[in-house]
Amino acid sequence: MILTVTLNAALDVTYTVDALVPNGSHRVTESFERAGGKGVNVARVLSALGLPSVVTGLAGGPTGRAIRDDLRAARLTDELVSMPGDSRRTVTVVSREDGDATVFNPSGPRVDGETWTEFTTRFTRLVRDARVVVLSGSLPPGLPTGTYGRLIRLATEAGALTVLDTGGPALLAALAARPTVIKPNATEIAEVTGHDDVVAAAAGLRTLGARSVVASRGPDGLYAVTPEGSWRATPPQRLTGNPTGAGDACVAAIAAGLLSGAAWPAVLREAVALSAAAVPCPLAGDFDAGLHAQFRTSVPVESTHAPVND
Amino acid sequence: MILTVTLNAALDVTYTVDALVPNGSHRVTESFERAGGKGVNVARVLSALGLPSVVTGLAGGPTGRAIRDDLRAARLTDELVSMPGDSRRTVTVVSREDGDATVFNPSGPRVDGETWTEFTTRFTRLVRDARVVVLSGSLPPGLPTGTYGRLIRLATEAGALTVLDTGGPALLAALAARPTVIKPNATEIAEVTGHDDVVAAAAGLRTLGARSVVASRGPDGLYAVTPEGSWRATPPQRLTGNPTGAGDACVAAIAAGLLSGAAWPAVLREAVALSAAAVPCPLAGDFDAGLHAQFRTSVPVESTHAPVND
Repeated sequence: MILTVTLNAALDVTYTVDALVPNGSHRVTESFERAGGKGVNVARVLSALGLPSVVTGLAGGPTGRAIRDDLRAARLTDELVSMPGDSRRTVTVVSREDGDATVFNPSGPRVDGETWTEFTTRFTRLVRDARVVVLSGSLPPGLPTGTYGRLIRLATEAGALTVLDTGGPALLAALAARPTVIKPNATEIAEVTGHDDVVAAAAGLRTLGARSVVASRGPDGLYAVTPEGSWRATPPQRLTGNPTGAGDACVAAIAAGLLSGAAWPAVLREAVALSAAAVPCPLAGDFDAGLHAQFRTSVPVESTHAPVND
Repeated sequence: MILTVTLNAALDVTYTVDALVPNGSHRVTESFERAGGKGVNVARVLSALGLPSVVTGLAGGPTGRAIRDDLRAARLTDELVSMPGDSRRTVTVVSREDGDATVFNPSGPRVDGETWTEFTTRFTRLVRDARVVVLSGSLPPGLPTGTYGRLIRLATEAGALTVLDTGGPALLAALAARPTVIKPNATEIAEVTGHDDVVAAAAGLRTLGARSVVASRGPDGLYAVTPEGSWRATPPQRLTGNPTGAGDACVAAIAAGLLSGAAWPAVLREAVALSAAAVPCPLAGDFDAGLHAQFRTSVPVESTHAPVND
């Protein structure tokens, strides 16, 4: 089982307008809500791939109830822990004119000590049955930057592999706990390491504790540095669209690869194929099954140099 | 008592961001929710003026519950009728950089026959105690354009005076029911009559059935055509800010004037003063009490021509 952790679960609301006019008043022609947060999106992708996953994290208030109702509707296993306060609603405004998506992310409610104790108890129980644990997204207010590190240690002690997809101080503080894979994007890498050069930065992140680094470089694909070697995997065609969805699909493919024990080149091929198939889908967690089937045979994966010592 | 009707009640959500960047991803630095819809805003203004009002209309789902919780917190009398579906959430994105407000208005859930029957029963009961009925805002999906006309007839039969603040087909279809006052803005007037000339358009709207027309012309103030005469009332200074709040404050002042039986020049002076005092407030339903006190003695009201026959 793959356990996905979403500490700042959200109800993702999409409003479609004719065209976004700053300082204007807009009639919303379509409105759509669904449970989100990166971990939830990863669970959706895994579910579509037929892989068993469990969703845990924190949710509260009426928006938390709406998140849980939607998880049930999507037949995802809900192990979210209730918290005081109302979960956040992210709003994405999609312009019908040009397809642009403008995103608004509230920080979410503050996590109190009691909730956190309850969560760690739940996590410790769930992780016993997990082969892979995915930790995705920002930390909500009230949790220290060392939070992901602590969860990674609990998961590792229970014998699970870990995939971490976050940025900033939360990423940096988690490295010493030795996550199996981290999946920063180019912006997160530059932010955390100060390096624009992904190759040097990825090596640095491994020195700091990450066992493998899969750096996502948007339309340029993935660059991975692992104990087994380093690779570049490139999308078969240039696609523009939903970068959040692409990142979450990539993480799902990595988690699936860790679960099956596939070799890195196969994992990266699948990660690029699944990301590319997610890009045209406006909702994170969705991917185009036809494109996925087509891309997974046509992603070039190129070894860049010899295995690095772990 | 003044009865305010909000058939498409909303939870008005305000998200503050550093600056609005179309196609960008924004961290929401502040988030704020409160019960809205024009009728609710009018009731807030009346309440701040110390005038008794009752809020009716339609609300449903978890968002409807949040609306009602907020009405209770604001000590407004809640006579909303529950409906299936979840009430809409309007989202206003305020840019900290330049103060610009970008508004997104969903249409709201569809009203079914059963809900409408329950609403008209409730309205018929409430209107017995109402001296003035305020009907504000757009009609939700599922209600015919003749809806406001029907409610105006019920109110008139019960001996109440009516103020209608809506636009488009809903306004046009209501005129034959002879509302006491309509308060279209310049855009609504041009849309409905095809006239850019407010004077000619207002006369036309009276011919179609409105007893009095108070046309709001933004920073140019009000132009009123009534059975007692025609007047222009001009704000004492040019203000920029929240046009929704200004319109709702204007309607509250008209309703208060009908309740007290004040003469039109006094009503218009108060309407302009209250609107102008609402303009600088970011939230509709609020006004600056200090500015209100200052403006109400300094609004010029000028008679434009002799009384028109009713």
